[in-house]
Amino acid sequence: MADVTYAKGLEGVIAGESRICKVDGEKGRLYYYGYRIRDLAENASFEETTYLLLYGELPTADQLADFRIKMRSARELTPPILTMIKDFPRTSHPMELLQSVINFLSGYVDHKIAHSPTCNCRNTLHQIAQLPSVVAAFHRYKNGLEPLPPRDDLSHGANFLWMLTGREPDDEDGNIMDKWLVLHAEHSFNASTFTARVVASTLSTCYCSISAAIGSLYGSLHGGANEKVMAMVEEIENVENVRPWLDHALMEKRKIMGMGHRVYKAKDPRSVIMEQFLERLSEKYGDSRNLEILKEVEKVFREKMEEKGKPIYPNVDFFSGAVYSLLGIPTNLFTPIFAIARSSGWLAHILEQRQDNRLFRPKALFVGDVERPWPSIGSRI
Amino acid sequence: MADVTYAKGLEGVIAGESRICKVDGEKGRLYYYGYRIRDLAENASFEETTYLLLYGELPTADQLADFRIKMRSARELTPPILTMIKDFPRTSHPMELLQSVINFLSGYVDHKIAHSPTCNCRNTLHQIAQLPSVVAAFHRYKNGLEPLPPRDDLSHGANFLWMLTGREPDDEDGNIMDKWLVLHAEHSFNASTFTARVVASTLSTCYCSISAAIGSLYGSLHGGANEKVMAMVEEIENVENVRPWLDHALMEKRKIMGMGHRVYKAKDPRSVIMEQFLERLSEKYGDSRNLEILKEVEKVFREKMEEKGKPIYPNVDFFSGAVYSLLGIPTNLFTPIFAIARSSGWLAHILEQRQDNRLFRPKALFVGDVERPWPSIGSRI
Repeated sequence: MADVTYAKGLEGVIAGESRICKVDGEKGRLYYYGYRIRDLAENASFEETTYLLLYGELPTADQLADFRIKMRSARELTPPILTMIKDFPRTSHPMELLQSVINFLSGYVDHKIAHSPTCNCRNTLHQIAQLPSVVAAFHRYKNGLEPLPPRDDLSHGANFLWMLTGREPDDEDGNIMDKWLVLHAEHSFNASTFTARVVASTLSTCYCSISAAIGSLYGSLHGGANEKVMAMVEEIENVENVRPWLDHALMEKRKIMGMGHRVYKAKDPRSVIMEQFLERLSEKYGDSRNLEILKEVEKVFREKMEEKGKPIYPNVDFFSGAVYSLLGIPTNLFTPIFAIARSSGWLAHILEQRQDNRLFRPKALFVGDVERPWPSIGSRI
Repeated sequence: MADVTYAKGLEGVIAGESRICKVDGEKGRLYYYGYRIRDLAENASFEETTYLLLYGELPTADQLADFRIKMRSARELTPPILTMIKDFPRTSHPMELLQSVINFLSGYVDHKIAHSPTCNCRNTLHQIAQLPSVVAAFHRYKNGLEPLPPRDDLSHGANFLWMLTGREPDDEDGNIMDKWLVLHAEHSFNASTFTARVVASTLSTCYCSISAAIGSLYGSLHGGANEKVMAMVEEIENVENVRPWLDHALMEKRKIMGMGHRVYKAKDPRSVIMEQFLERLSEKYGDSRNLEILKEVEKVFREKMEEKGKPIYPNVDFFSGAVYSLLGIPTNLFTPIFAIARSSGWLAHILEQRQDNRLFRPKALFVGDVERPWPSIGSRI
């Protein structure tokens, strides 16, 4: 065994500097380039948020109008990409398709991305703009429907709902979908963003880097928590069951999904906003079953934790799946939509990495053998 | 500015333990699971080397025979994959295609890879076996030819040359190609292998992880050095030019490609073997121009460095491009072939990562602003 100590999973190790995102866990605040997530959710579309993430500053009205045109005109899929999606096995996970398509894309963009630290990936926004189109097209093929062309009179979020369902969402649904993307656009280093930076550090393209990040997000330890919250809600079934279910779950030391966060010691500010979205949608659609169960889980769980002196709060995943559910989005699209949102943050980190780049090349601690004599194949057992 | 210090690019930071590969830079030795690379190059095929990397032990004759059947039967591409390759823009780089295809593959394998630390990716070898088929098919479409089916009577290396050229290589060429893959199969942590481990640490699939690693290898700071050596040889043109060219290059402080290595303080053992391959092929094809130029570059450069008390030796990339050239392999396939070889090492690291997994999640040092007041869009300048 090795005598050397090191941080497994690089836990607590600083891997680089960043100006993009600050999580203030004590105060329960989250900032994108210095702006509070609450201000962004109130005032900015996903497109405006993306501009902020890619340029570090909020756009003027003219800049935003130009950026919107550029991003919306990049939404449409080319025929070879549609063929890929159509050919993809229906039983496979759309994340695998998404990772594959984003990479394939790089062959199809006008502005060919060079291997260069100065290459300006802000000029082609396909790597962000086309993700909703891919996810929606796969969903429709899977359900025996033809994909729909994007509508450039709709926001990023509203257009996604349109391409998915073929119904134009009302303002509230479209807005909530768009804000959902704002809330998930960025969250500093984590396995997928770190992956994007590691790949970018080789001066690979932004397409290759984002594709790699999608592969990372697909992992069950990373994306997917909101799916598990919904599975818990299904299991609990109704409000009366919450307390006995929780008693039993805690006795069995089961992890309560959507609760607690490595960094936030106060309520995750995104969870506060997500709860408001869920309240609005529950009222509008006259279906508050999930909301009631979730609020009861939060209340009872907090009581139990406070008894132990360990206050614990819902994280962003807690209400998020129930919001999806009321918007008519099936469970297997939860993680792909996370990727749709996070693509902006990934690209922000890729651009930042290139500005002051150093190839990521950590060391391994070798704990194996050396100088094993070569055994002839007949002598092996 | 930050007062905290940290290792940029994680240089010198231990990111994990590994038994797979040891580079002894002082002695100029390289080991895969304890066996010297010289022994492997002399005695083992790429298939046997792959078995060693995936199982940690050399196979018995029966195990190797079974493994060979499994790996060879996984070479053939399905029609949707062929369509993808055919549709891929001819002017794009095959690395982008390769990254995309490997991911797409996961939808098409019998044994669906689950999100699980115990999932046994050794049972489906498509993620290694199909890489040569993809690269060869793209190359042939690009040259107006139809792809060729794999031949299961040929080694991994020889079959690749067959699928690429449509000519069955003689034993020596086939063997050198196969050994080239052995020499490049593994080299401990580096940006692409680290990428594979980071993605695997989320419990994503091996396909997603290898795809991400390919994206990393595509970066110009990582793969691609042997292409640059060949560009240097082209520039030098003939043996007489070596000394004046080097004088000039050193005066201009240009980096001499293929020389020196971060870890090896003695001659890279792979470079010794590669030089022998180049000598054999140069003699056989009666074309020793590149060999002579390279040996002269090595000699003159070493003289100059020894004058400065800094002995410096060729690395694995130094003779490698010239070997390719005599095997009839064009420059744009150099990095894809590196990926073909390294896929075995990547999978070895993915399997090792899963055995004792911790999600990679380092910290960022935040150096930006917080609490910026929200400006109305009309007030922005």
